[in-house]
Amino acid sequence: MTSALPDPHLILDETGAQTLLGYIVDLSDGTARCHLDIAPQHGNRHGGLHGGIMCCMLDNAMGYAAALVFDPDARPTVATLSMTTNYTAPAREGRVTAQGKVSGGGRSIVYTEGTLTDADGAVLATATGVYKRIKA
Amino acid sequence: MTSALPDPHLILDETGAQTLLGYIVDLSDGTARCHLDIAPQHGNRHGGLHGGIMCCMLDNAMGYAAALVFDPDARPTVATLSMTTNYTAPAREGRVTAQGKVSGGGRSIVYTEGTLTDADGAVLATATGVYKRIKA
Amino acid sequence: MTSALPDPHLILDETGAQTLLGYIVDLSDGTARCHLDIAPQHGNRHGGLHGGIMCCMLDNAMGYAAALVFDPDARPTVATLSMTTNYTAPAREGRVTAQGKVSGGGRSIVYTEGTLTDADGAVLATATGVYKRIKA
Amino acid sequence: MTSALPDPHLILDETGAQTLLGYIVDLSDGTARCHLDIAPQHGNRHGGLHGGIMCCMLDNAMGYAAALVFDPDARPTVATLSMTTNYTAPAREGRVTAQGKVSGGGRSIVYTEGTLTDADGAVLATATGVYKRIKA
Repeated sequence: MTSALPDPHLILDETGAQTLLGYIVDLSDGTARCHLDIAPQHGNRHGGLHGGIMCCMLDNAMGYAAALVFDPDARPTVATLSMTTNYTAPAREGRVTAQGKVSGGGRSIVYTEGTLTDADGAVLATATGVYKRIKA
Repeated sequence: MTSALPDPHLILDETGAQTLLGYIVDLSDGTARCHLDIAPQHGNRHGGLHGGIMCCMLDNAMGYAAALVFDPDARPTVATLSMTTNYTAPAREGRVTAQGKVSGGGRSIVYTEGTLTDADGAVLATATGVYKRIKA
Repeated sequence: MTSALPDPHLILDETGAQTLLGYIVDLSDGTARCHLDIAPQHGNRHGGLHGGIMCCMLDNAMGYAAALVFDPDARPTVATLSMTTNYTAPAREGRVTAQGKVSGGGRSIVYTEGTLTDADGAVLATATGVYKRIKA
Repeated sequence: MTSALPDPHLILDETGAQTLLGYIVDLSDGTARCHLDIAPQHGNRHGGLHGGIMCCMLDNAMGYAAALVFDPDARPTVATLSMTTNYTAPAREGRVTAQGKVSGGGRSIVYTEGTLTDADGAVLATATGVYKRIKA
């Protein structure tokens, strides 16, 4: 029998932006991910997923990875100082996933890397971020 | 008597993402700007404007500035290759405006700068972008 | 009669890298600049000024601008966290100048912008930087 | 008997900047790397390896990785459009190595990642780059 309880690793509707855009934060396996099913309301001028929405997902995935450095419950203990996103391929449909991981730092500054992939694992965008520890 | 006609320099609901987020593209005076009135659905984990939504606005403002290099009607003739955003101050309420301008290039590659300010002109974020000309 | 004393706003040979590359730091008028006269030892694979040497100059100019926030004597009170450089045009000869200025922050984090121009004022590269205050 | 011939995968003194800074380009195993033995002439204001010299090495390693996409002999077929460097730890002595790899693109634009490590493999800096194919 599968549990009727919600998965404690999935976070929905935590913020206004998350609800509006409709992505899911997934902290399973101690990894920070965001999933989004592309729909017409996410489209840019070329009919693909808007690059700024890719940034929302990459920033959230990297920010969760950074927050996990300071708090096992990933409370909002970090703020984004800077973020660079490279757009390697357009995304038109299906589920996309942003994954964040820590690449350095760990006292007051955390450096991160992020990757946005489609359902087949093809890389759509990569990012790096610099996060600063703040009082929660 | 003020005209009842819509302002031809204001662009609303051009894309799914623009409608969802609710920002206005403003090409008055030949300058590329995006305006957004911050509301709860734009919030991040700290109760301020989500950094990814700042990226949406900065990318659009810079992308319009780049498109104006190739087409006086700013049709979608460019794609974003890379974008860096520096978050200088949080934004909590009121109207924010992203402005884009061209800083170099102009054949196949256009380099841009963007600035996001609040209603008092305080800088909230700065960005640089690299855009590539594509077939419209 | 011109003074025989060295200009107190010009800094030469402060670091090993500065001596090796041969650029001059110029803090005249409270502005942070670095000057370099391009020579064969600065060349890249295309026969122009190496982009990494542009980074050296832009980082130094921006770092001095950031240090001036905390210390009128611009002692080394900041460390670079992150830097993005956009290469808008190649540089082949003559004097190039990197100028740094502060665009935000000011407590523990300083955000900067940098511009590298040739002797005619043409922009060769632009940069943004994020600096962190450290104990001098 | 070891060969007295020079290793065809090691490139020395290819450019003025490489000779001046003293790093070695190493294309063994089809991977693009640059090695540098830190010396006083590489120092910054804090007595560590200058961040701009890290950029020189990372740009060269990433640029070689990008060039290998178009030419097995890695001739200079690409120019750097943009580069972001995150400085995760200072470097004081010993040998440092920059490694570049391709993360996307491949027609006219190549996206790259770079990592600078010390002799123990500790990460000192990470970078991303955007390169454009040019006529060699």
